[in-house]
Amino acid sequence: MKPVETISWDDTDQAVHLIDQTRLPGGYRNVRCASVDRLIRAIQRLEVRGAPALGVAGAMGVALAARRIHDKDFLQFSEKLAIEAERLRRARPTAVNLSWGVDRVMARAATGLSVKEVRDLTLSEALSVADDDARTCHILGGVGAAILPEKCTILTHCNAGALACREWGTALGVVRSAVESGKEVRVIACETRPLLQGARLTAWELQRDGIGITVIPDSSAAYLMRQGMVDLVLVGADRVTSDVVFNKIGTYMHAICARHHKIPFYVAAPLSTFDPVRTEDDVEVEQRGREEVASFAGVETVPPGVPVLNYGFDATPLSLVEGIITEKGVLRAPLDWDFISREQKK
Amino acid sequence: MKPVETISWDDTDQAVHLIDQTRLPGGYRNVRCASVDRLIRAIQRLEVRGAPALGVAGAMGVALAARRIHDKDFLQFSEKLAIEAERLRRARPTAVNLSWGVDRVMARAATGLSVKEVRDLTLSEALSVADDDARTCHILGGVGAAILPEKCTILTHCNAGALACREWGTALGVVRSAVESGKEVRVIACETRPLLQGARLTAWELQRDGIGITVIPDSSAAYLMRQGMVDLVLVGADRVTSDVVFNKIGTYMHAICARHHKIPFYVAAPLSTFDPVRTEDDVEVEQRGREEVASFAGVETVPPGVPVLNYGFDATPLSLVEGIITEKGVLRAPLDWDFISREQKK
Repeated sequence: MKPVETISWDDTDQAVHLIDQTRLPGGYRNVRCASVDRLIRAIQRLEVRGAPALGVAGAMGVALAARRIHDKDFLQFSEKLAIEAERLRRARPTAVNLSWGVDRVMARAATGLSVKEVRDLTLSEALSVADDDARTCHILGGVGAAILPEKCTILTHCNAGALACREWGTALGVVRSAVESGKEVRVIACETRPLLQGARLTAWELQRDGIGITVIPDSSAAYLMRQGMVDLVLVGADRVTSDVVFNKIGTYMHAICARHHKIPFYVAAPLSTFDPVRTEDDVEVEQRGREEVASFAGVETVPPGVPVLNYGFDATPLSLVEGIITEKGVLRAPLDWDFISREQKK
Repeated sequence: MKPVETISWDDTDQAVHLIDQTRLPGGYRNVRCASVDRLIRAIQRLEVRGAPALGVAGAMGVALAARRIHDKDFLQFSEKLAIEAERLRRARPTAVNLSWGVDRVMARAATGLSVKEVRDLTLSEALSVADDDARTCHILGGVGAAILPEKCTILTHCNAGALACREWGTALGVVRSAVESGKEVRVIACETRPLLQGARLTAWELQRDGIGITVIPDSSAAYLMRQGMVDLVLVGADRVTSDVVFNKIGTYMHAICARHHKIPFYVAAPLSTFDPVRTEDDVEVEQRGREEVASFAGVETVPPGVPVLNYGFDATPLSLVEGIITEKGVLRAPLDWDFISREQKK
C-alpha cells in the first residue's frame, strides 16, 4: 500500500500539497496551497496538523513565500520574506515545531546573497526538513518499539501518526515499528473531542495498515484502565518545555489516571519538539472557537448563548511522564537539557 | 417561568407524557407513551433518562401496563402485569431506580384484590413515587446547598438536573437551592460524550433558570482543575453499591483528577439510588451501540469497520468520594448501611 504522504512539495506547480485532514475518514482530498495565505488557512483550519507536520508546513511555507514575493530588489525581497515568515510562525501558537521549521529555513535563507539563491536555498532546506522528519520518525519508532512488551494494548490520544508528520508518525510510528518487528500491539484510540482526530485520523491510518484499533470516548479511558484493559499510554507532543509536555487537550487527564493505575505514560516526540528555554507559564495555550464544541455537521449541540471554553492543548508535568521517546533514545526526568540542546544544534 | 416537567401522567388519555430529551436543545417536544412498548423504547432511546426520572418512569410504566392489559380474569391479569413489570425492569440494566420504581408499585399492586383495585392502586402509587421524587430533590437540594461555599464554581458531568428527575434535580437541585439561598454558584458542564447530555440538557436547563453555565469538552476538566478554575465536583448517581458509585461514563476520571488536585468530589443521590446488597462486580455496566460514538447527525466520524467500545457508565470507588448528598444528610465513607437500609424501608 502506498504510504500516506501528509504534506509534500509539488515541483510542477511550485506549491505545497497536503491531505485535507478535516475531511477524513469520509473523504480523501488533496489541497493545493499555492499562496502563503492559503497555507496559513490550512494550518488554522487543521487541514494540516500535528507538531512534526507543522514543522514541515512552516519550512515549506518559507520556500513558498520566497517564490511568491516578486520584488527584484534583494533588500525589499528579504524584508517581505521576514514578514511572511513571522505570519507563518504565528499561525498557531502552541506547537513549537511550526516556528522551528520556519526558523530552520530562515537561517538557511540568511546565507543567500540574491533572490534566486534564497529561493533555491529555502526550497532545498524545506525538502531536507521533510526528509529529516521522515527519517527521524523511523529512528524514533525503532527506539520506542524496543521498550514495548511483546504483546500489549496501547491507549493513545489524538493523532500522533503519519498524518501528524511527513509519514510513519511519532507515537503511531512506535506502534508501526513494533508491529514490523513482530510484536503484537493493539491500539485503543480516544476519539479526541472536539475535532475527533483520534476517531477520524488515528483509526483511519491504523485500519489502513491492518493494525488492531478500537475507538472509545475520551472519558472512558480511566474506566478501561480500571478494568486492566490498558498496558501503556503513548501520546505525541506539541512542545516539551523544561517542566511540562504540551499536547492535545485531554492528555493531562490520561497522565493523571495512568499514574493512579500505575500504568506507564510515555510521550513520543522528536527533539525538534523540545523547547529548553521556556516553561509552562511562557507558552500560550490556544483557545479555539466555540463552534468546534457547540455544533456538529450543522446541528447545534449547545444552546445558543451558552459560553464554551475550548482549549486546544493542556500541560502535563514531567513528573507524570515515564519517559519521552526521541530519535536519540528514551529520555527520563530529570531531563538532561545540555544533551538536548547540543543534539538539537547538530 | 414554568418549571420543567420531565415526566407526568396524563389522566385524560391515561398515558405517560415526557419531554423528548434526545431533541433538546434544538427542539422541545412532548412524547406520549400510551403503551408499555412505547415507554420502554423511550427509556432505551434515552428520551427519558436520569436515575430518579427512570424510577418515576418505571412506576408509571406499571400503572400504564395495568390499564393496557385487558384480561378480566384476575389471575391472568396479575400474571401479565408481572411480565410487563419485568420487561420494564430490564429496559436498562445499570440505574437501580428503574427497578426500584417498578418494585415499589408492584408491592402496592400485590395488596389489590381485583383488576380495578390494582389499576387504582398502581396509579396512586406511581403518582406518589413522582411526588416523593420532587419532594426528595428539594430536601436533598437544601442539604447540599448548606455545605457549598458562599461563592464557588462547580464542575458537573452529564445531567443530574430537573430533566433527570421529576423536577428540580439532584446535583443541579443542590445548585438551584444554593442559588435560591443567595449563594453565588457558577457551573461548568462537561459536554458528556457520546450523547452530550451536559452540553444539551444541563446547559439548557441552567440557562433557562439564569444560572451561570459554561460548557467544556469532557477531556479538559483536569486542565481546568490544574488552573484553579474548579472549586468542587458534583455529579449524580445511577446506583450506589457498598463499594462504588455507578454514574455516567467519565465520572470516574473526574473523581481521580479531583483527588489529584485535592478538590472535593461530591455525589448527589436520593436513597432510592442506593443498593446495599450489591457490589461493583454484581452490576452490569450497559454497553451501548457503536453508532452513538461513530456517527453524528448522519456524518460518520469513525471509519466503517473500526470497532467502538461504548460503556454507558463507570464505577467510582467510595474512597474517592468526599460525601454523598442525600435527603437524609451528607453521608460519608464508611457508609452506615444499617441506617441507609432502615431509612429506605420507611
